[in-house]
Amino acid sequence: MQETRLDTARIRAARRVIDPVFLDSPLYRCEALEAALGCGVSIKLETANPVRSFKGRGTEVVTSLLADGGPRAVVCASAGNLGQALAWSGRGRGLDVTVVASRFAPAAKLDRIRALDARLELVDGDFDMARERAAAIARRDGVRLVEDSLDVETCEGAATIGLELVDASFDAVLIALGGGAMATGVGHVVKALVPGVEVICVQPLGAPAMTRSWRRRRVVTTASTDTVADGVAGRRPIPAVLDDLLLVADDAVLVREASIIAGVRLLFEHAGLVVEPSAALGVAAILEDRERFAGRHVVTIVCGGNVDLDAHRGWVTG
Amino acid sequence: MQETRLDTARIRAARRVIDPVFLDSPLYRCEALEAALGCGVSIKLETANPVRSFKGRGTEVVTSLLADGGPRAVVCASAGNLGQALAWSGRGRGLDVTVVASRFAPAAKLDRIRALDARLELVDGDFDMARERAAAIARRDGVRLVEDSLDVETCEGAATIGLELVDASFDAVLIALGGGAMATGVGHVVKALVPGVEVICVQPLGAPAMTRSWRRRRVVTTASTDTVADGVAGRRPIPAVLDDLLLVADDAVLVREASIIAGVRLLFEHAGLVVEPSAALGVAAILEDRERFAGRHVVTIVCGGNVDLDAHRGWVTG
Repeated sequence: MQETRLDTARIRAARRVIDPVFLDSPLYRCEALEAALGCGVSIKLETANPVRSFKGRGTEVVTSLLADGGPRAVVCASAGNLGQALAWSGRGRGLDVTVVASRFAPAAKLDRIRALDARLELVDGDFDMARERAAAIARRDGVRLVEDSLDVETCEGAATIGLELVDASFDAVLIALGGGAMATGVGHVVKALVPGVEVICVQPLGAPAMTRSWRRRRVVTTASTDTVADGVAGRRPIPAVLDDLLLVADDAVLVREASIIAGVRLLFEHAGLVVEPSAALGVAAILEDRERFAGRHVVTIVCGGNVDLDAHRGWVTG
Repeated sequence: MQETRLDTARIRAARRVIDPVFLDSPLYRCEALEAALGCGVSIKLETANPVRSFKGRGTEVVTSLLADGGPRAVVCASAGNLGQALAWSGRGRGLDVTVVASRFAPAAKLDRIRALDARLELVDGDFDMARERAAAIARRDGVRLVEDSLDVETCEGAATIGLELVDASFDAVLIALGGGAMATGVGHVVKALVPGVEVICVQPLGAPAMTRSWRRRRVVTTASTDTVADGVAGRRPIPAVLDDLLLVADDAVLVREASIIAGVRLLFEHAGLVVEPSAALGVAAILEDRERFAGRHVVTIVCGGNVDLDAHRGWVTG
């Protein structure tokens, strides 16, 4: 394949700087889900760690580089999970962490960012407005801006998930698509090491910017987003990330809100997992196209479990 | 220490016959729980595998020995989790598996035993009645009886959890106590390798037979049990298991039903975990004696997640 910005040797090396608590997460077949979905389903579970999402893999790489003599202060914009992870990794390395988030992010995410001793600044807008504000803070204060998906370390950290998949036997991997760090990271490793496995990115119809961009092979922005999947609700794809995604994704599909919520419910009822909506995108994709997956074995990455429990209760009892 | 029936070298060797899907389960600090409980809390998570409990570790050892030329049929009594695990391990090795369970066991457990192609026989009584029935079937049909906690393989399989703890730094481990396989297994490894760590067994006040036996240093049976923690509700401790427990447990405590349910709720609200009541015994023990644990770092083994969701909903919203 053409070369992405990512490097497989660096991804292997990243395993050495990531706290082992984030590595070698569970990967297991879930037969109860298989019965419900009509295909082989393995879960790659990224919620059983101190920040309950895969984002710690990337922030460990970012902060380990900073701890080696870079700036001692960092700022990031976050939909909620990157901020928690950066706060966790930064605290362990004595860094001063500022997180900018939307005030409409789930309270569960904002509370945990605060609990991890990060400075939290809320903007009265969405994730892309938080990105602008974080960049302004970085310029003003001369601190390091961590940009999810643009900083290759965030992609290569997420890519370590891919290294943990390639020894298994499966036909396709379903990856939640937001900014693209996980999709380009896991996609890079899968295409480099097991190119026959289909890399399928899944995004909400209500936040389709990156998927539309992938389909048109150029950046397409949207004016707004409207989805329960707060973790992947971006409007402005990053050109360099799109370029990588074009090289590694076999498909990018959009799913309806009702399917995402049904996915949250199925993962609760049949797998006993409490997940945030972004983590149910893979199941939603199967629900919307059972024929495509029938008889095949798919891995779905359950990428985060930071969810407001009142909302979750509504979705699973709905 | 005096010698238990268990052998540390055999436990290390057991790792080689156990499907890796059961090994190296997540072990992580949960700060949200720490804030609620007033002590350091690490979770050892045994629910993210194909049978959602730790029992697969033991049944993998049992069935790997049978697959090496032993009988091709096995029967066990089960509160629900051993049966699922034996069905899973037996199916993979072409064994004929019969599980005897109480008809009052959670439907979630019974359904999954059936789904794993095991023959399920229900008795109109409790777990100890199922034990008698399983023994009768074994005699009648001349098949291998797998006896949880008595068969040392079930203890040594569970003991592999201990091997995965001893490199961490902690002060005490909280272990659900039922028949005693997990308590003697993990206890053996901890006392052999990190003897300064306190081994605390936790049982419901409503099913106290083994704890009372441990305290009196002789087998004490009870006429009945009355607890939501179905996974640990035995009335008749096995003498050989008690002997081992006397060698490895530093303490055995009894907890109230309200504390167990509060533990289920805390694990849901603060750790995002759906657990069965037996898996909340450790948290219940902290809730009942905060002073004992204040400022210390405890590991609690979250040993199973097979729970009827209607009951769970009642507990977490109660």
